[in-house]
Amino acid sequence: MASPATEPRAADSPLVDCDVHQAWSDPEAITDRLPKRYRKNRGYTLPGSAWSNPHGLNRRDAIPDDGGRPGSDPETLLEHHIERFDVDYCILTGAGIIEVGIAPDPQYATALARAYNEWLIEEWLAVDDRFLGSIVVPPQVPETAAELIDEFADHEQIVQVLLPDANASRKPYGRREFWPLYRAAAEYDLPVAIHPGTAGRGVSNPPTGAGYPSKYIEWHTVLPATYIGHLASLLTEGVFVEIPDLTFVCIEGGLAWIPHLLWRLDKNWRALRVQTPWLERPPSEYVEEHVRFTTQPIEEPKDPSHIRAIFEMISAETTVMFASDYPHWDNDSPTAGLPPLEDDQLRNVQYRTAAETYDLPSNAFGDR
Amino acid sequence: MASPATEPRAADSPLVDCDVHQAWSDPEAITDRLPKRYRKNRGYTLPGSAWSNPHGLNRRDAIPDDGGRPGSDPETLLEHHIERFDVDYCILTGAGIIEVGIAPDPQYATALARAYNEWLIEEWLAVDDRFLGSIVVPPQVPETAAELIDEFADHEQIVQVLLPDANASRKPYGRREFWPLYRAAAEYDLPVAIHPGTAGRGVSNPPTGAGYPSKYIEWHTVLPATYIGHLASLLTEGVFVEIPDLTFVCIEGGLAWIPHLLWRLDKNWRALRVQTPWLERPPSEYVEEHVRFTTQPIEEPKDPSHIRAIFEMISAETTVMFASDYPHWDNDSPTAGLPPLEDDQLRNVQYRTAAETYDLPSNAFGDR
Repeated sequence: MASPATEPRAADSPLVDCDVHQAWSDPEAITDRLPKRYRKNRGYTLPGSAWSNPHGLNRRDAIPDDGGRPGSDPETLLEHHIERFDVDYCILTGAGIIEVGIAPDPQYATALARAYNEWLIEEWLAVDDRFLGSIVVPPQVPETAAELIDEFADHEQIVQVLLPDANASRKPYGRREFWPLYRAAAEYDLPVAIHPGTAGRGVSNPPTGAGYPSKYIEWHTVLPATYIGHLASLLTEGVFVEIPDLTFVCIEGGLAWIPHLLWRLDKNWRALRVQTPWLERPPSEYVEEHVRFTTQPIEEPKDPSHIRAIFEMISAETTVMFASDYPHWDNDSPTAGLPPLEDDQLRNVQYRTAAETYDLPSNAFGDR
Repeated sequence: MASPATEPRAADSPLVDCDVHQAWSDPEAITDRLPKRYRKNRGYTLPGSAWSNPHGLNRRDAIPDDGGRPGSDPETLLEHHIERFDVDYCILTGAGIIEVGIAPDPQYATALARAYNEWLIEEWLAVDDRFLGSIVVPPQVPETAAELIDEFADHEQIVQVLLPDANASRKPYGRREFWPLYRAAAEYDLPVAIHPGTAGRGVSNPPTGAGYPSKYIEWHTVLPATYIGHLASLLTEGVFVEIPDLTFVCIEGGLAWIPHLLWRLDKNWRALRVQTPWLERPPSEYVEEHVRFTTQPIEEPKDPSHIRAIFEMISAETTVMFASDYPHWDNDSPTAGLPPLEDDQLRNVQYRTAAETYDLPSNAFGDR
């Protein structure tokens, strides 16, 4: 995890970890919370991955003492990650649940998401106030997603609405049919986030226009292409003009592709702005205000000056937030998986931008 | 076209233009060359674009005196572009013909490609030896594509095999089924190129995993995502290990996304190389030897140092070649659409890398 492109954490800095995957130890935690009509089948059905990671998805040293799934025991997670690295807050993003967004049946997907959100609040957020939650909503029927947001958004440890990178409606997320979901999130001051893992699975599209990858290494490499598609859509459709309080978070999508997308889009906007009369400024300017990106998996070029250059291009000191992706196989350590920035910029990445994005109580960081 | 990110051509430098679109003035130029069974229908059927450019696809000042399609009159093209900018060679890439690669019927696609290639040789390459040709082959049936290469590759002005960015087989281009096509091209020392324009059309996939874009500005912006998919596939499947003489050219796909793809892929390769035992080196190293990129549409960030940084990251002095995309709406002028490099590097971009890639006679540049 340490590499020439990463540097130790700014000394004595607080830390918000924007991507930690907690899991259920037994699927009954979810299925017991489903309406009766979905319980006959025992277990549940969500589209699995078609691409196999030869090392498995999780760190083996994150397996709890009871032998359960990594991330499934709150006490182990607290000890192994939160306390070890002195993490002030971690934003829980679940495991095997954003797949509701690539399920063919929207009603079943909604039932599973509701059960997950209840479990998240009862079994995790109640345990420790350093745990913050992302409620999962299937985007297939945005009006239903908005209702789910209404149900759970008032909980004070719920800080985000989580969508998959792919979506079963097979449409880019800027499309107007998704706006009711965004309006609901913005009303509760909750950012909407996408997280990768579902591209090319279930009823979603292939991860790029080139078609389905063969192997996990290829599949994992091209995941940001879906983010390019969603972000181009969000920016050109005018979501951030229409819903000015909306923040969108791209988790685990990488960073170094962003300059290309924004330069290309700004150049196209200068020539083709007749197609997007609702945009008042170059599209890239909406990104600085409305879009945030998380660090892991941080790119690690041989020459650290290259990643520093990318960070300058994307105004990283206000757009990028630290994430570990614990306990996944390629997670970045809070002491090493950080970009090589100056101390003050690094503090923004480590906690200030997250504190603002998620409206975290400033007193939590007051004495650091 | 001139902008802070672009600089005038290196003084007195030769120039190879790697992307010039010649067109037929009358579709009968193609249909008259089709086998009789395809001629009953008058005209021909290829999947058209679903996204409309509000300005039209072509420069209006490129319309020939006879009022025909821009690029359809060799003399006008010579005068308006080649002689005006003192272009030594231009590589013709056609207009409305790579669509054979997204046609559902491979036999019909092959017949159209053959007719196009004959027309290219008879009506263009015969006119002026500054015209160099790309033969178009539909990739749907790679063995048939190899036969087409056999038919036309011996012509001394044929310098390239051209594929669309999307492909009707809906598979990434690294897959082994495409290797007969690449072997044939490599035997004749012809680079294989992809050119955008077909993503999301005909029987191809959506341009990104996010689904079909709404508008031309969005569609045009996300086109490089398909290149990400193809390049990740070419590199992980080991094409360049198995066919060491193969060169692959990414035309008109942009440049600033390349560092991200290569850093991400190299990082994944370090962790997941068990999946690609045939790769002897980090994937990015194959790019420097085997993959070339063309400039247009060159990214134009506000700060020219940013594009200079990208050029350093991708070793542009050996991987990037100038292209104008004449006569398209967003073409880059040979006097302005160039990256802000030092004179010697700029000469590589302007002609040296193209001369090597396409094996152009060095004496053509001897006195410059």
